Amino acid sequence: MSTEPIEFWFDFTSPYSYLIAEKIDDLGARHGRKVKWHPILLGALFKTTGTVPLIPVPLKGEYSVRDFARSARFLNIAYRQPTKFPLATIAAARAYYWLHDRDCAMARAYAKATFRAYFLDDRDISDAAVVVDLAKAAGANGEELAAALGAQELKDRLKKECEAAIATGMFGAPYVIIDGEPFWGADRLPQIEKWLETGGF
Amino acid sequence: MSTEPIEFWFDFTSPYSYLIAEKIDDLGARHGRKVKWHPILLGALFKTTGTVPLIPVPLKGEYSVRDFARSARFLNIAYRQPTKFPLATIAAARAYYWLHDRDCAMARAYAKATFRAYFLDDRDISDAAVVVDLAKAAGANGEELAAALGAQELKDRLKKECEAAIATGMFGAPYVIIDGEPFWGADRLPQIEKWLETGGF
Repeated sequence: MSTEPIEFWFDFTSPYSYLIAEKIDDLGARHGRKVKWHPILLGALFKTTGTVPLIPVPLKGEYSVRDFARSARFLNIAYRQPTKFPLATIAAARAYYWLHDRDCAMARAYAKATFRAYFLDDRDISDAAVVVDLAKAAGANGEELAAALGAQELKDRLKKECEAAIATGMFGAPYVIIDGEPFWGADRLPQIEKWLETGGF
Repeated sequence: MSTEPIEFWFDFTSPYSYLIAEKIDDLGARHGRKVKWHPILLGALFKTTGTVPLIPVPLKGEYSVRDFARSARFLNIAYRQPTKFPLATIAAARAYYWLHDRDCAMARAYAKATFRAYFLDDRDISDAAVVVDLAKAAGANGEELAAALGAQELKDRLKKECEAAIATGMFGAPYVIIDGEPFWGADRLPQIEKWLETGGF
């Protein structure tokens, strides 16, 4: 059986990404797999595929808000629809890579805390000051991060990740890749689990 | 526990609708529920929501074809990607209502056979002659049906169903409603099952 890491591509503003984020590390561990997290910007993907955010779409938008909460209940995950939704996650994603290049455990803790700050505590994670706070709580040097957030190096780092996401075939979030097989959406968790159990079906 | 019928809205050209069609009657029966089938035309809904068919969408289209087959394997349902896809289902849907208004068991048998003709035997169900064949195999009078297919009465009958679909909030197929709760997609089968078991969660 393969022990290749699971690739988990997501946007911090995506409710279904949050649902996967709450499950994927444990699910991977039960099958001897590490998980590589990759926050990216859905907006960059939408330009390529010509698709649009869910919420402004008539009927589908209203259904989606209902389904976010119901899917969370189904998976026994606490969830609160954020007041500001969706929002820009540039600072949140850049901070992740800055942390990751220094201490990947710290980056993972920050990512989980950022999802929860948004989907449980209704914090505005589009605000760089909130992002820096969350990084500090995970153990980072807030002043260094705040200075790095606007620097070209970190802009380029995130841009490269968004390009890599598109190169994998990603068109929506969450996007999970296991041994080259792509799974889009939190509703693919049962298929992901079966794939890990059986090595493919 | 409610015994209200399950409402099942679908388009005959939708692979995920076919997957639900293969499961929903048995699932309903296990929970004391009948299922009302409603074929409609996705094109009519897309005009309202501004959404588009999956296949021409870059990346998402290719993923979808892969996911149709994988989701079928996951559910142990035989599936073959049709050569002509998607296709117009006006004749197929009109025939359903003509049958239904005469003998609803015959209409159900015809609907199941039509899905299988398309998704197993690669038959062109956009062809009225194929539709009439399938209805005859289900026990209908083929000449009467062939004459009715172009009549205003049957056109109006299907148009009314499409309007009713939009009035329920439907924006994509399959769309299953249980006691007022809408579920979009074959991937909501686990939630549908839990809803039927618990009366809501």
